[in-house]
Amino acid sequence: MLDITTTGQDLTIDDVRAAHARIKPYIHNTPVLTSTYLNGVTGAELFFKCENFQKAGAFKVRGASNAVFGLSDEQAKNGVATHSSGNHALSLSYAAGRRGIPCHVVMPRTAPQAKKDAVKGYGGIITECEPSTTSRETVFAEVQAATGAEFVHPYNDARVIAGQGTCSLELIEEISDLDCVVAPIGGGGMISGTCLTLSNLAPHVKIYAAEPDQADDAARSFRAGHIIADDAPVTVADGLKVPLKENTWHFVSQFVEDVLTASEQEIIDAMKLTWQRLKIVMEPSCAVPLAVILKNPDVFAGKRVGVIVTGGNVDLDKLPWIKG
Amino acid sequence: MLDITTTGQDLTIDDVRAAHARIKPYIHNTPVLTSTYLNGVTGAELFFKCENFQKAGAFKVRGASNAVFGLSDEQAKNGVATHSSGNHALSLSYAAGRRGIPCHVVMPRTAPQAKKDAVKGYGGIITECEPSTTSRETVFAEVQAATGAEFVHPYNDARVIAGQGTCSLELIEEISDLDCVVAPIGGGGMISGTCLTLSNLAPHVKIYAAEPDQADDAARSFRAGHIIADDAPVTVADGLKVPLKENTWHFVSQFVEDVLTASEQEIIDAMKLTWQRLKIVMEPSCAVPLAVILKNPDVFAGKRVGVIVTGGNVDLDKLPWIKG
Repeated sequence: MLDITTTGQDLTIDDVRAAHARIKPYIHNTPVLTSTYLNGVTGAELFFKCENFQKAGAFKVRGASNAVFGLSDEQAKNGVATHSSGNHALSLSYAAGRRGIPCHVVMPRTAPQAKKDAVKGYGGIITECEPSTTSRETVFAEVQAATGAEFVHPYNDARVIAGQGTCSLELIEEISDLDCVVAPIGGGGMISGTCLTLSNLAPHVKIYAAEPDQADDAARSFRAGHIIADDAPVTVADGLKVPLKENTWHFVSQFVEDVLTASEQEIIDAMKLTWQRLKIVMEPSCAVPLAVILKNPDVFAGKRVGVIVTGGNVDLDKLPWIKG
Repeated sequence: MLDITTTGQDLTIDDVRAAHARIKPYIHNTPVLTSTYLNGVTGAELFFKCENFQKAGAFKVRGASNAVFGLSDEQAKNGVATHSSGNHALSLSYAAGRRGIPCHVVMPRTAPQAKKDAVKGYGGIITECEPSTTSRETVFAEVQAATGAEFVHPYNDARVIAGQGTCSLELIEEISDLDCVVAPIGGGGMISGTCLTLSNLAPHVKIYAAEPDQADDAARSFRAGHIIADDAPVTVADGLKVPLKENTWHFVSQFVEDVLTASEQEIIDAMKLTWQRLKIVMEPSCAVPLAVILKNPDVFAGKRVGVIVTGGNVDLDKLPWIKG
């Protein structure tokens, strides 16, 4: 059984299949949407895997559910705990709620109010920290010591990575002959799960990570050949501010074709374009893949491209293209 | 063959089936979405038929495509023409474009810029009128006289009604045992198509029309037993300002269970709630059904309710819950 001591390199495709069987009662097999217009402007065939329609509004419920429902009763008895900029927090709260155990969450005081409300709505217990990696980790250690809860890291956790791998499992079951898949990269959980699944089941599919220019630590890490971590980068794509860790670096360094970046304005434009044309509500982070696809026709034109739309938890009162 | 002289009472379920076969290459069989949260707050089981994901962004492409592709080459040679507050205009432009014939559109100068741009994007030729029923009909007569184009009314047209009936045909094929269906009502095209299909194939399903308090001419008509038409009502649900006509009145008067209304604030709240929870971009008009469901638990709680989400063509720069 996977636990907190399992590393990224221990993972196999069987862990993804086991995760899928375990979490199926608690997640949606989300739809894949297409747009003739967006195919026209990119010159590619785009297949949007809509995890914004996922339970708790984000793909992170896959990894969180795999972690929560993989615990023994003894491991689960003090509940679970995590730190997160938002979606992992509410996903873990959702999964813990379904299992009937407490979920302790450390999140930045600056996180969108919509995300804090959603965590509370799912029964999560919030402790606030400052909006930096350093503060988050310090406050979290205090919470964990006080509760004895099982730590489920938002991404640097083999159980979580195996859970995220179920997303591309569903995608390649539904859409055949993809040439590549593009997903946003923050800490690298989704990209790592995607690598785990595709490197085993569809190794010809190239995997691109998409990142904001203003939080491009993964791109710099990829080129340098070792992890470079920034403390508290500033970007509209607020789900992508966290750095790579050893378990996700294992996958990024081995299986990612390239890490491509986009400016804040390119991300906002791609976000608005998706809302206009796909008619879906999605987070700024989810727009980074379309932004890099629009920017790099040499890479994507003529290709069949899977795009992971990672989440839809947006503060609708603060849309980045409307000046407040 | 149906043409402009066919009346609502001539229509049979065979016309809906013929429409579905005719338009299938040009439309999507749109997905049905559900939300545990929205089921919780309404006490009902809601099934949202997402025509906001339809080609051209609205259900109106069903009726428009049925009209355009049902024309003989002789009838089609001067193109088609219509007046519309928006979605029928771009749907007819889309269908005419697929057939390769011109589409002339009279639309109010006050229509959202996003809708005007979309009509032009599909190749429609726009002539503007004042935002009143009277002005629209006067300007349209001039355009039709000048072009000789075939008139396809946005809703008071049997071909259009038969096309709109394909939406609930798909809905009942996918979702069994519905107790009722709720759709917005403006001119009554969608409601009439829904009545045509369900009164034949699922006569036990009750049909509710949902309307803004501030454009409640259908509700007043329903209670009075004859058509009452308002000139230029003002509501955020800009797709629902037009009055019933004889072909839609035929269905509304015979097959609708009730016409329920909601205030502007109730519509805006329901719209925002849907964006937050279903993660879809939809027009204010589409929120009127959820608004009346939230307002009338005595009617809907405990029921399996189909909800027609009619369109997703919104000006994203002017959202009604954000003060500009």
